[in-house]
Amino acid sequence: MTSKKLVNTVAGCADDALAGLVACNPSLQLLHGHRVALRSDLDSLKGRVALLSGGGSGHEPAHAGFIGKGMLTGVIAGAVFTSPAVGSILAAIRAVAQAGTVGTLLIVKNYTGDRLNFGLAREQARAEGIPVEMVVIGDDSAFTVLKKAGRRGLCGTVLIHKVAGALAEAGVGLEEITKRVSAVAQAMGTLGVSLSSCSVPGSRPTFELAPDEVELGLGIHGEAGVRRIKMASADEIVTLMLDHMTASSNVSRVPVQTGSSVVLMVNNLGGLSFLELGIIADAAVRALEGRGVKIARALVGTFMSALEMPGISLTLLLVDEPLLKLIDAETTASAWPNVAKVPVTGRKRSRAAPAEPLEAPVSTTAGGLTSKRVVLVLERVCATLLGLEEHLNALDRAAGDGDCGTTHSRAARAIQGWLKEGPPPASPTQLLSKLSLLLLEKMGGSSGALYGLFLTAAAQPLKAKTDLPAWSAAMDAGLEAMQKYGKAAPGDRTMLDSLWAAGQELQAWKSPGANLFQVLTKAVQSAEAAAEATKNMEAGAGRASYISSARLDQPDPGAVAAAAVLRAILEALQSPGV
Amino acid sequence: MTSKKLVNTVAGCADDALAGLVACNPSLQLLHGHRVALRSDLDSLKGRVALLSGGGSGHEPAHAGFIGKGMLTGVIAGAVFTSPAVGSILAAIRAVAQAGTVGTLLIVKNYTGDRLNFGLAREQARAEGIPVEMVVIGDDSAFTVLKKAGRRGLCGTVLIHKVAGALAEAGVGLEEITKRVSAVAQAMGTLGVSLSSCSVPGSRPTFELAPDEVELGLGIHGEAGVRRIKMASADEIVTLMLDHMTASSNVSRVPVQTGSSVVLMVNNLGGLSFLELGIIADAAVRALEGRGVKIARALVGTFMSALEMPGISLTLLLVDEPLLKLIDAETTASAWPNVAKVPVTGRKRSRAAPAEPLEAPVSTTAGGLTSKRVVLVLERVCATLLGLEEHLNALDRAAGDGDCGTTHSRAARAIQGWLKEGPPPASPTQLLSKLSLLLLEKMGGSSGALYGLFLTAAAQPLKAKTDLPAWSAAMDAGLEAMQKYGKAAPGDRTMLDSLWAAGQELQAWKSPGANLFQVLTKAVQSAEAAAEATKNMEAGAGRASYISSARLDQPDPGAVAAAAVLRAILEALQSPGV
Repeated sequence: MTSKKLVNTVAGCADDALAGLVACNPSLQLLHGHRVALRSDLDSLKGRVALLSGGGSGHEPAHAGFIGKGMLTGVIAGAVFTSPAVGSILAAIRAVAQAGTVGTLLIVKNYTGDRLNFGLAREQARAEGIPVEMVVIGDDSAFTVLKKAGRRGLCGTVLIHKVAGALAEAGVGLEEITKRVSAVAQAMGTLGVSLSSCSVPGSRPTFELAPDEVELGLGIHGEAGVRRIKMASADEIVTLMLDHMTASSNVSRVPVQTGSSVVLMVNNLGGLSFLELGIIADAAVRALEGRGVKIARALVGTFMSALEMPGISLTLLLVDEPLLKLIDAETTASAWPNVAKVPVTGRKRSRAAPAEPLEAPVSTTAGGLTSKRVVLVLERVCATLLGLEEHLNALDRAAGDGDCGTTHSRAARAIQGWLKEGPPPASPTQLLSKLSLLLLEKMGGSSGALYGLFLTAAAQPLKAKTDLPAWSAAMDAGLEAMQKYGKAAPGDRTMLDSLWAAGQELQAWKSPGANLFQVLTKAVQSAEAAAEATKNMEAGAGRASYISSARLDQPDPGAVAAAAVLRAILEALQSPGV
Repeated sequence: MTSKKLVNTVAGCADDALAGLVACNPSLQLLHGHRVALRSDLDSLKGRVALLSGGGSGHEPAHAGFIGKGMLTGVIAGAVFTSPAVGSILAAIRAVAQAGTVGTLLIVKNYTGDRLNFGLAREQARAEGIPVEMVVIGDDSAFTVLKKAGRRGLCGTVLIHKVAGALAEAGVGLEEITKRVSAVAQAMGTLGVSLSSCSVPGSRPTFELAPDEVELGLGIHGEAGVRRIKMASADEIVTLMLDHMTASSNVSRVPVQTGSSVVLMVNNLGGLSFLELGIIADAAVRALEGRGVKIARALVGTFMSALEMPGISLTLLLVDEPLLKLIDAETTASAWPNVAKVPVTGRKRSRAAPAEPLEAPVSTTAGGLTSKRVVLVLERVCATLLGLEEHLNALDRAAGDGDCGTTHSRAARAIQGWLKEGPPPASPTQLLSKLSLLLLEKMGGSSGALYGLFLTAAAQPLKAKTDLPAWSAAMDAGLEAMQKYGKAAPGDRTMLDSLWAAGQELQAWKSPGANLFQVLTKAVQSAEAAAEATKNMEAGAGRASYISSARLDQPDPGAVAAAAVLRAILEALQSPGV
């Protein structure tokens, strides 16, 4: 069974992918008849050195994503994981030469096919009189003993594109660029790790890993690595990688040590989540700084992939200030990230949390309320909700997840606990704000957030006044916030139905001489009727909206609870002790 | 079985990922005690509007990657796929307010939890006197009928970050920014498709797909989409997506039609290869332009992911010139790509292939050679190789893939075919160059490339002179190129061993009065001895280098073939007819 891929044809993969990159990047053009992408402003490069790179496809955004002012002049792409054709490499060299560049540097990853094909094109171009140099990049730090074929070219090659690009843009000559980048290439190392393999379009995955294994030191063509290790934490894996790639016993090490200054690249090999990439980046920064290494710049992203391989590679490049200037130089290449031109190591990574606004002292009497009255009302509300727990859960089992009573009881117990800590504020604004925070924190879920919203908004009109019109306005503000952020409307079979009905009656408080209890009694009755009426409603919001209305023949538990809370408030206020 | 993840702890995922992003981006800071990242230059924002966004983690680089000058001021991140805490949202609002900003716009994706929690924080901040507005973004075009909850917030939210950021940077006020971005948010649509699901760290994948199915219209939390479709080509899937998201019968459509000007975003949902992303981008550009839609800008990359989901989303935003200016405005946000500020549609996407250098007319006599002599030599070489086919394959079976004879026979037949087309050039440079191209194209593999390299390089010293010293120099040049690009040295058990031995003898041609046949005879004998000697060598290059030397007790077939070619040349030159 071959892997699922979003492609048109297996044979056309590399052509289509390059065409897509060029289509979306107006600064690039294809070279007719070849799998070659070039800067569209070649004429602006007269008298400068051209930089060409490339290799097999499947490593996107490498290399075409790194074409642009300040980076590559062009790339030649092969089929997936296959070296490009000599004829196309030669065509690219001729194209940049005919545009008036004074010489071409070929930047080639160290693989036999690439060396041979780029080498051949180079020899042919030189036979035509075009000055062409070639650097072969090998940054792999996986193999601890000398390999005849040398180190493989991996993600570090992108840093060479950048350095060479900055030099070429600055007008440096071919020989000098070749010399400089050859030296830079000696000062870096890359190591990869992956959770599993990738698969070439039309093929199966290239290797299999057990669920508790990861592959260390693997290449970018789905080939297996130097060894398999047991799955471990991100910190442990990063530590192991850094140990391996800097060990003095490793002939392909990058000689990073305490006091070294480095550019760190954290490269997504393709299919790893960016969440994990961030976790690895965090681990790498901590581990390196823990070793006394100064991180000058950190680049995190997808630079050199191995199709959809879920893994990462770490690249370390030793840098000094002149080299850093080249890394920092401007480029228009689409896949080069926005990197701040300041060191990663040595700065403050967090700032103090903001000051909380000063709290007004808790007033225990305000606007006709006293803490004692507040306590009696809240106790009645809590007792009511606790008494309804089973009933509300039963109603909720028909329409939701059956925890409505539990949620409201949790709120009630939180309020009871809070009341034991001291007298509640009598100031309505303070009271509702405190209750809002309490429900938000302790009641939880959407109900907690909605009651929190209701109470926070309701608290505002009560800042200036606490008379009956202000309490009606508070109800309005609470209802408005609940609808605005909760997206429920009256008739949607939610707790809003009861509260809304009550709010309509409470408008009467805004008329001069309105009676507290008469109006509140009508409001509670209206809320109860509205709660009962929800049994005939189709759910328009909340979890119940996913249930067929035919199965809903009981009232909405949230609406029932809200009506019960209102009745408890009314009864407590009317009771002799208050 | 939960999925394999590169994390430290499941509980710490979101914290570690945000810490990593901040650690690697010196322009960002964490807010102590909260999962909040803010610009580190908050003080530079005095008098301006602050922009905060955020939501659950798992969508990286959204949203923290879009913090920077010209985009977001900060973000508040929740746990994976979970809304952020109200207290942290409020802390972020307070922090930017205390830094002297004149108001805050909250940019929130349309999900209940985000609406409620950002809404609550907004109400609380307003109660503290901080001006805070909120826009809720819903760009999902998946649901064709009206949903009470409205359209979900997807990748288009990133475009809102950009537009709002450009306006805030330009000093526009809170109310005006809110109005402008609310209007822009109405003019976009997003649709996703995926090859499979993703899995939250510590959990299993959220849905399963058959090997021939893809999920259309899915969200960014691993939730299933609106329907499953049969796997199809990239073109077909993109066409289906564009049809769906622009259909007049779709209430959540984006009204794109002939003549519309759009920004296109091709977003990797996380785990798709960038090869496929490019193929999809190509398909989308062709399909849109085929409908007469003008693509003003195209953004391709990972912007809003759903962990490692292997899929994509397409976003279309209708734009006019003023809006495009805001999209083009500068930003330092690390995850915003380098986008050229010119239209995608309407430009030339390819350039003509370069002119080939003029070929000199084929000379049929040169430097003592005649076409007739060349034909006789080449025919002898071909006959020899064809006669050795089985022997070479047998030798290769012990050390490689058993096709060495086949490869050389293929070369021989190609040369025979070429000879039938007309007289070969007698000019040594022309002859070797032509043979180089022929072997490169027809022989194939590493052998073809190596012989191609050898002949291309060898042809150069024969341009000026064709005497015996020049032929010796040609041999030197060929050997040098072969070693340089092929990375084999004498003694590595390759064809180089025979050629190298011969080359050493041919040095004698450089002495005055050297005898053609005496020296060549010694060279051939030396080559044959060297080929025989490879049987005792360990393979240092090529495929045989992966075989234990104990299993290698036959000579290297490539070396044997090269020696045989040399003997054939000698014998042909000595034969009476030449």
